[in-house]
Amino acid sequence: MIRFENDYAEGAHSAILAKLAETNLEQTPGYGMDAHCDAARELIRRECGTPDADVHFLVGGTQANAVMLASLLRPHQGAVSPETGHIAVHETGAIEATGHKVLPLPSAADGKITASRVHALHRAHYADEAHEHMVQPGAVYISFPTECGTVYTKEELADLAATCRECGLPLVIDGARMGYGVAACGVTLRDVAACADMFSIGGTKVGALFGEAVVVTNETLRRDFRYGMKQRGGMLAKGRLLGIQFETLFTDGLYWEISRHAVTLAMRIRRAFEEKGVPLRYDSPTNQQFPILSGEALAKFRDRYAFSLWEQRDDGCAVARFCTSWATREEHVEALIRDIDRHCPRRRV
Amino acid sequence: MIRFENDYAEGAHSAILAKLAETNLEQTPGYGMDAHCDAARELIRRECGTPDADVHFLVGGTQANAVMLASLLRPHQGAVSPETGHIAVHETGAIEATGHKVLPLPSAADGKITASRVHALHRAHYADEAHEHMVQPGAVYISFPTECGTVYTKEELADLAATCRECGLPLVIDGARMGYGVAACGVTLRDVAACADMFSIGGTKVGALFGEAVVVTNETLRRDFRYGMKQRGGMLAKGRLLGIQFETLFTDGLYWEISRHAVTLAMRIRRAFEEKGVPLRYDSPTNQQFPILSGEALAKFRDRYAFSLWEQRDDGCAVARFCTSWATREEHVEALIRDIDRHCPRRRV
Amino acid sequence: MIRFENDYAEGAHSAILAKLAETNLEQTPGYGMDAHCDAARELIRRECGTPDADVHFLVGGTQANAVMLASLLRPHQGAVSPETGHIAVHETGAIEATGHKVLPLPSAADGKITASRVHALHRAHYADEAHEHMVQPGAVYISFPTECGTVYTKEELADLAATCRECGLPLVIDGARMGYGVAACGVTLRDVAACADMFSIGGTKVGALFGEAVVVTNETLRRDFRYGMKQRGGMLAKGRLLGIQFETLFTDGLYWEISRHAVTLAMRIRRAFEEKGVPLRYDSPTNQQFPILSGEALAKFRDRYAFSLWEQRDDGCAVARFCTSWATREEHVEALIRDIDRHCPRRRV
Amino acid sequence: MIRFENDYAEGAHSAILAKLAETNLEQTPGYGMDAHCDAARELIRRECGTPDADVHFLVGGTQANAVMLASLLRPHQGAVSPETGHIAVHETGAIEATGHKVLPLPSAADGKITASRVHALHRAHYADEAHEHMVQPGAVYISFPTECGTVYTKEELADLAATCRECGLPLVIDGARMGYGVAACGVTLRDVAACADMFSIGGTKVGALFGEAVVVTNETLRRDFRYGMKQRGGMLAKGRLLGIQFETLFTDGLYWEISRHAVTLAMRIRRAFEEKGVPLRYDSPTNQQFPILSGEALAKFRDRYAFSLWEQRDDGCAVARFCTSWATREEHVEALIRDIDRHCPRRRV
Repeated sequence: MIRFENDYAEGAHSAILAKLAETNLEQTPGYGMDAHCDAARELIRRECGTPDADVHFLVGGTQANAVMLASLLRPHQGAVSPETGHIAVHETGAIEATGHKVLPLPSAADGKITASRVHALHRAHYADEAHEHMVQPGAVYISFPTECGTVYTKEELADLAATCRECGLPLVIDGARMGYGVAACGVTLRDVAACADMFSIGGTKVGALFGEAVVVTNETLRRDFRYGMKQRGGMLAKGRLLGIQFETLFTDGLYWEISRHAVTLAMRIRRAFEEKGVPLRYDSPTNQQFPILSGEALAKFRDRYAFSLWEQRDDGCAVARFCTSWATREEHVEALIRDIDRHCPRRRV
Repeated sequence: MIRFENDYAEGAHSAILAKLAETNLEQTPGYGMDAHCDAARELIRRECGTPDADVHFLVGGTQANAVMLASLLRPHQGAVSPETGHIAVHETGAIEATGHKVLPLPSAADGKITASRVHALHRAHYADEAHEHMVQPGAVYISFPTECGTVYTKEELADLAATCRECGLPLVIDGARMGYGVAACGVTLRDVAACADMFSIGGTKVGALFGEAVVVTNETLRRDFRYGMKQRGGMLAKGRLLGIQFETLFTDGLYWEISRHAVTLAMRIRRAFEEKGVPLRYDSPTNQQFPILSGEALAKFRDRYAFSLWEQRDDGCAVARFCTSWATREEHVEALIRDIDRHCPRRRV
Repeated sequence: MIRFENDYAEGAHSAILAKLAETNLEQTPGYGMDAHCDAARELIRRECGTPDADVHFLVGGTQANAVMLASLLRPHQGAVSPETGHIAVHETGAIEATGHKVLPLPSAADGKITASRVHALHRAHYADEAHEHMVQPGAVYISFPTECGTVYTKEELADLAATCRECGLPLVIDGARMGYGVAACGVTLRDVAACADMFSIGGTKVGALFGEAVVVTNETLRRDFRYGMKQRGGMLAKGRLLGIQFETLFTDGLYWEISRHAVTLAMRIRRAFEEKGVPLRYDSPTNQQFPILSGEALAKFRDRYAFSLWEQRDDGCAVARFCTSWATREEHVEALIRDIDRHCPRRRV
Repeated sequence: MIRFENDYAEGAHSAILAKLAETNLEQTPGYGMDAHCDAARELIRRECGTPDADVHFLVGGTQANAVMLASLLRPHQGAVSPETGHIAVHETGAIEATGHKVLPLPSAADGKITASRVHALHRAHYADEAHEHMVQPGAVYISFPTECGTVYTKEELADLAATCRECGLPLVIDGARMGYGVAACGVTLRDVAACADMFSIGGTKVGALFGEAVVVTNETLRRDFRYGMKQRGGMLAKGRLLGIQFETLFTDGLYWEISRHAVTLAMRIRRAFEEKGVPLRYDSPTNQQFPILSGEALAKFRDRYAFSLWEQRDDGCAVARFCTSWATREEHVEALIRDIDRHCPRRRV
């Protein structure tokens, strides 16, 4: 069984394992107060062009989202999120468990929300006579790239950020797959840092064993962030493990190399589907591809590959999700491409 | 200005004020442990045909909903609600503040949800491989009557209850306007009590100064309910004030008399609109009526009447809400009917 | 049975019932947006000498405490409270239910906390290397008068306020029995308003049917307070009921007249105990008195009076609590004094 | 600088690193559904003598405690904990953030609580007329070993468990240092499993990079535990990392070997202090030792060793904490012993 089912099926990039082994017997203070964490913080600040930003390290994405949002929302506020957002759908109500409603905003077919929709929601809230009886929008949450593999352009991000500032809504960006987003388009970490008030940079899906870096650019939101990390179980005793991993990822461009590897392979898969006329559910330039497969094709792929069933359709077709990652092997992609060629009779020319 | 804007614009029915004055200097224990509360409990149990049910008294509806739902949901569970449900829209995230997501279920145009939709949601949840990553449906919440003034039939309620039992989902009914619902159709309090695991009977909108009775029919959900009332600020020090009011309302059928009064007047308003061909947004047999008015008509009504603007439409028309209540005066309704006749030129025959 | 068991055993002062009856058929907007609430707000602002303060009306004390504290604490913060504080002991964890720890501060025998203890706690927190692993003090909560019936002097209040400001800790004062505190000593509402960032003025125990006014003096804490009231079930639909009551209480000094009545009677009871050498648990100048009674005396009082058992002692004695209120009748106090004379043989001269 | 400051200063036992490297490119499903997790679960079940128990893997201890307790408490319930318990002091209010009060129980000088104290607290709660106004005890939490390094005997544990069952209070045991406790005394994992309804087995401090296994022995508490893990950020995407580590730890007794190593070295340190007459704050048979050092001695040790300052005393002395762990090197212990000999002049014979 070859696994394209997600981007966390393997352990870590070999450079990370090597560094963990090399530093294993170093004695360090706990909870992220060690020299490796400090070095990683500095590397990330530099990469983001934000010398004053606070950088924290957490273990997982659900945790990072909950800690970020709970740190800045007041009790009566909710987080505006694309209706397909991870916090809206796949975190077992982690945000609600901190007392806050997720305010779902209809997203376009590509899973993205627009500045104008955010603006309209903000206006509509205060225009409603009963607004004190409704959850107040308190922040905007998006993912980059989105759950659908799509990316915001630099202009879209800037527009969203401008609107958020105008409305007094901090912009929080979930970057669990940040590397694959940046590798896919012209947006850089500097662009993200310039737009977001707070964002994460995913390690788990981009070469690390685990770990998300959280960057707090907005000065007024920095205070006491570590208390919230501890309270919500996000402060790792051996914090150095996170520091060591991010230090490795952001040394000599390893994070970007890893990201490009996955995106390049994903594009080869995408082209293989396209060449056979297989429609794609989303126009994704990143490491996740969503072909719409016939029931027949699906069955054939299932024998050999693990992939996610994204959406079952009434006509028997289904949207499948194939992910590449830092760990995807070229020969596996080649095998898949051969099978695409074999199992997908050309449709719709 | 004549007010049809809501059903809580006045104080209380005169019988209630009289009883409060009459009992004013009685000395009673606090927190609902007095003889008036006991008497009211017994009257309500009898009316519901549930001799063993627990009956509690709370001050307001948002409070009653939060106390009911928080008492029975586990942390990872959410409350399934019509997307137009009061808890989903107009309680400033009170349910989320207790840690639980409201799971909105698309309602029909009439604000009602169906047994089959609940069943489908339940099935879909467990069919999803990732269901542990999603909020688990833990209860079903509906209002009777709904926010749109509509009512479930006895059969619809029984179907919903049967489905809820099958799915292991307690059914919680918000009866903030219970009296007006019962007065409008063939459903009785006994029917409601037989279907719901827990429900409220509204006093605030039906003749009391304030107060909601909560009836817990399901034996396994009764334990320690009063702790939750106290914790969420819902245990009134002078609990007797609630007991006295509900005792009065459920003596000699006052609650039903009050309810019929409001519904009768609402039906006269409804017929007046219908006779002029004014379309109604919902087919409401209860004390709330939702005519769709032209901008012109709206402006004219505004001079003399207070009513709610329910929905602004793009064509300049708007849905207005006119409420009657226990306190609505016949001469006010007559004045309104005359103005309907005057301001609403016959449309669409 | 004559009841001295609490200060909420009766209904309301006759002036309040009269005003409720008189205004009963007025039609007003809901949720505290009516003219009576506005008038009451203005009366309270004047009494407090704080023309810019925000004034809100809630139904009960537990609710008021939870809404006040949750409005200003960040998630990792707790409320410092005397260990005997109402929020620490008798609100079924209402503060914890909003996510915040109550940080109990040892109080002196009189239930009061001192500025120096608050200062020490603040210093100790930040001096601890592991302070990020501990709940951060986020506000200071006291009651005036305390649960033990004692009062802070004007100087003690000013010291506490100065320390709180120095430490960046808002001072929240629970004034469920505010009237009895002010009537007992030289502290005025102006003094309280000058010291507290936010405080309540109790109606429930001081002549109203129910209701607590919350005054927010600190400008930065005012924003969006009403959202929190709604979210936690503290926004009464017929808000005017609260407005009418506080309007009545603060017209022509009724609130103070009521308060003096209770305190005067309590002092007569106190003197009766003192004259018989019955020790008092606390040196209370307010409406609650705590004699330490022998088992024998206790049994005799029990036949005729309802009072609280405050503390059972190992030697068979017990601390009883006798409360007076706006509603206490002189003849009841006289009867009690006669029985004190009869049942309490002079001890310890 | 030689570090005795905590038991998480290094990475992981070499066997763990080796196993992580060896399995690195295996492709597995996520979220703990892989074969390594299954194997580790089976090993732990066998070690505990509980073939039916559910075993889960979480990243950290604060997380494990919050997930365990929130899974079983109802909203109005609190967790009884020794006043020195980790949840009561050092988790930034993580339990309160889930809505529950920690009910501190005075512990003896050794940090332990007794069955009789739990029983008394339970009785006192229900004996109080106002018990509905107080947080209801809902579970008992202890650590094994305690924060003070002490251990419960088998009899003490059994007594506590019997009392908890009698009172209807699930017993939750925090085993962050479980290995060191078991290695120090006659209590086995089977004993713990027989007493606790739910408990954790710490990996972070006992040879793993990170990770806590949670064992749910009580059948009625097993349902839907994984939802809670996900909701509170405790479900690791690459769950296999936890499975691999616990698989390694519980193969061929590595966990016990590691634990014995630390305890043996701690006993050598303890004896060195004792021989010089240095008093120990707690009678700890485990990997944490708490000598009471003079200011002078303290200063000298500080030059060469990192250790925690546990408690500053008024007489200039201080309680220090020295920890050993799986990673402590014999030569470091020998150096420390030589310095104890040098810096601690014999006192009090």
